[in-house]
Amino acid sequence: MSARVESRGRVTLIGGGPGAEDLLTLRAVRALAAADVVLYDRLAPHATLHELAPGAELIDVGKRPGHHAFPQEEIEALMVARAELGAHVVRLKGGDPYVLGRGGEEVLACHRAGIPVEVVPGVTSAIAVPSAAGIPLTHRGVSHLFTVVSGHAPLDDDTLRHLAGLGGTIVVLMGVNTLPSITAGLVRHGLAADLPVAIVERGFQPGQRTTISDLGGVVVAAGRARAASPAVVVIGEVVRLAHDGDLTAQGLMDRAARLAVPGS
Amino acid sequence: MSARVESRGRVTLIGGGPGAEDLLTLRAVRALAAADVVLYDRLAPHATLHELAPGAELIDVGKRPGHHAFPQEEIEALMVARAELGAHVVRLKGGDPYVLGRGGEEVLACHRAGIPVEVVPGVTSAIAVPSAAGIPLTHRGVSHLFTVVSGHAPLDDDTLRHLAGLGGTIVVLMGVNTLPSITAGLVRHGLAADLPVAIVERGFQPGQRTTISDLGGVVVAAGRARAASPAVVVIGEVVRLAHDGDLTAQGLMDRAARLAVPGS
Repeated sequence: MSARVESRGRVTLIGGGPGAEDLLTLRAVRALAAADVVLYDRLAPHATLHELAPGAELIDVGKRPGHHAFPQEEIEALMVARAELGAHVVRLKGGDPYVLGRGGEEVLACHRAGIPVEVVPGVTSAIAVPSAAGIPLTHRGVSHLFTVVSGHAPLDDDTLRHLAGLGGTIVVLMGVNTLPSITAGLVRHGLAADLPVAIVERGFQPGQRTTISDLGGVVVAAGRARAASPAVVVIGEVVRLAHDGDLTAQGLMDRAARLAVPGS
Repeated sequence: MSARVESRGRVTLIGGGPGAEDLLTLRAVRALAAADVVLYDRLAPHATLHELAPGAELIDVGKRPGHHAFPQEEIEALMVARAELGAHVVRLKGGDPYVLGRGGEEVLACHRAGIPVEVVPGVTSAIAVPSAAGIPLTHRGVSHLFTVVSGHAPLDDDTLRHLAGLGGTIVVLMGVNTLPSITAGLVRHGLAADLPVAIVERGFQPGQRTTISDLGGVVVAAGRARAASPAVVVIGEVVRLAHDGDLTAQGLMDRAARLAVPGS
């Protein structure tokens, strides 16, 4: 009988949510409590992992600027190797594993190795971080759709044209560096230069900050504010709903009236 | 001193996730435990609400086919009225409050009434239900963006054209009834008739079922399977990654090879 057949090893891929530990799901907390090994990312909640996963070896595979980072293939190899030795490996990722998180690749790596793998969905930063700034991605009468896109690399012209034409809310993850090309491209393809844009930095972390501007002005605003990753960029009319905590009751009522819904 | 000034009333708007109770967040569980009143929807997890919110009055405001449903304005009025009487009102919604859930309207209703309101983001069904069927909305080399859209009403031609042109994954919520017009529209605007489509019904509930077809065939397949709400429709190449539990190891490896990522 081979070692693999005897092995109880398995992998649980967990969406850890946007960073606040109390935005972990109950299912995630239970998996962490039963973990032998936890491989965690920089953006996953990890400050109290030693309490959440008291019996586990904790391995930081996150990419820290200027520090050694594990390449994706090494993470997958480590995950599979530990599971093949019989461990319950928890792979703890920020946000949701299937939203620009390479979770699909990690699942395939387990499948290829014959390791049982389960995916626990998480609260995605794409939705929750705007929410923390008071921005709903959809709002009746304002937007009934949204697109989430990676800004890790510049978007091609076709993508920009159709994003601009779609007319819904646009959420860009990892988009601080490509902000100039994305905003210029959307204006070139017909979006108004005064369409509101929000940059929400460090969502759910100390120092969370929202910078509000518009497509024409946000690059200058971001530069002036020294906006930096991690940040979520939201483009669309829903940004007008952002509440900044300083707004007076009258301001909120005025805003609500402007956004009044026709019909019901 | 007015009653409102003395009141401790407040509202917590909670995203209850896709339906499994263990996909509630810790923050949601804590808010429920402290609730005086819970207003819950049909799609929110509610089977054990009496345990999660033992001190609370539980009010079902969900829309059940053929039964009385609370109109949106009545839900908002009830929520505000109870908070004005000093209650901690939890408004428990399915998925995330800000994804096609009218959460923004409920927040504005609180603002207008001067009631403190907090939003707890949840695991959205738009991402988690496909995930439960093994479908990642993004996958390196396959799709780096996705759009979530309401299929409650037919989509206009412009929206269909740009959704087709965008080339990413399309997720349609509440889309079973409009499936014929949406799929025909996407094909008319250039998407291939053999582009894969998945209908995931009753995500995270007993009887969860995935029907896989393509843009050209899904209406017939849905009819044959008698697909019904609640369901999430996923359109895009990522549907090829769906694992159905019956796939052999060789099948998975073949699939992984087909989806091999150029570069790293």
